[in-house]
Amino acid sequence: MSRIILASASPRRKELLEQIGLEFEIWPAQGEEIVTKTLPEEIVTELSGRKAEETASGIVSYNEKNAGLVEPQDLLVIGADTVVFCEGQILGKPKDEDDARRMLSLLSGNTHSVYTGVTFVLISRSGRAGEYSFAERTDVSMYPMSKEEIERYLATGEPMDKAGAYGIQGRCAIHIKEIRGDYYNVVGLPIGRMYQELQKLGIDLYQM
Amino acid sequence: MSRIILASASPRRKELLEQIGLEFEIWPAQGEEIVTKTLPEEIVTELSGRKAEETASGIVSYNEKNAGLVEPQDLLVIGADTVVFCEGQILGKPKDEDDARRMLSLLSGNTHSVYTGVTFVLISRSGRAGEYSFAERTDVSMYPMSKEEIERYLATGEPMDKAGAYGIQGRCAIHIKEIRGDYYNVVGLPIGRMYQELQKLGIDLYQM
Repeated sequence: MSRIILASASPRRKELLEQIGLEFEIWPAQGEEIVTKTLPEEIVTELSGRKAEETASGIVSYNEKNAGLVEPQDLLVIGADTVVFCEGQILGKPKDEDDARRMLSLLSGNTHSVYTGVTFVLISRSGRAGEYSFAERTDVSMYPMSKEEIERYLATGEPMDKAGAYGIQGRCAIHIKEIRGDYYNVVGLPIGRMYQELQKLGIDLYQM
Repeated sequence: MSRIILASASPRRKELLEQIGLEFEIWPAQGEEIVTKTLPEEIVTELSGRKAEETASGIVSYNEKNAGLVEPQDLLVIGADTVVFCEGQILGKPKDEDDARRMLSLLSGNTHSVYTGVTFVLISRSGRAGEYSFAERTDVSMYPMSKEEIERYLATGEPMDKAGAYGIQGRCAIHIKEIRGDYYNVVGLPIGRMYQELQKLGIDLYQM
């Protein structure tokens, strides 16, 4: 038996792993958001790596401290980070309502890209470790939103904890015209690509 | 006050209207599936119309029988129908597991189109009626599925009540490479387009 660990406190990522029927644990990383890159696909890859590594280190030290009590197991740690990229700007989570208003005005009637970076840290029970990362991009076109529609959406409270100040899986769905790419990448975890990349690495999520 | 009525028993369509925060009732139509058209966009439009009309008639007769007891209200009835179109074949719900297996083999590693037709029947309290229909298309590309993956997915039981034998919102998400169009159209109701079309008709779903 192996353990799958999600290095994220995001309730949406948790729901996605549940949706595909996995058994997993959550061990959130603080994930200090120090960015050394400039391209969105590199930023999310870097941040997802930092989260997965932080969680993996935490588990390894925990296991070392409790050696003899914890049964050695193979570990798969999954880190992820999502940003919205629109007209040259990287949009993370809004600082406040004004910031959310600014982001929604920018996205309104426009096409933006959502990037999610995913890092797997693999640690075998014998101690061998490996790391694998990728980034997935989905383009999202929004219908124009009137000022009133933006205010109404802000009033739902949905924007505040989400990159780009919207959730495609919530009320904002009425403002989305079309996407090109993986929908779940916009929600926060590209589960199709994730499953396929693990298959290529010889890992079957359902046979762990 | 007006009433919004969904002429569908689909739990997924119900969830989508709940997701966008609407108050509505469900009055499912039997929706006899007699098809006189051949193009997928025409088939779904026709079937959605038949469902919306059947439900609207049911409500109107109910109200007539209970005249004096039922307060007259404006009605918006929403009918919808979804099919999958792949290599010239229209795929509805599978008849049995073998049929589902055939559909999944056809979709595997391929791109198909999902069409949802939507019909609004509008009846004002003064008795004036109107009808408006549209069809929305979303293209879906799937990763190749091995025989084993098809059998595993069949074993989840998900395929049986769904057009094209899969649910993008369930376990099948791991096999979806990308979509082009509205994700919710694939789930069964294009809520973005629906909201926008009603706005054009001067109807604000949140001010009814």
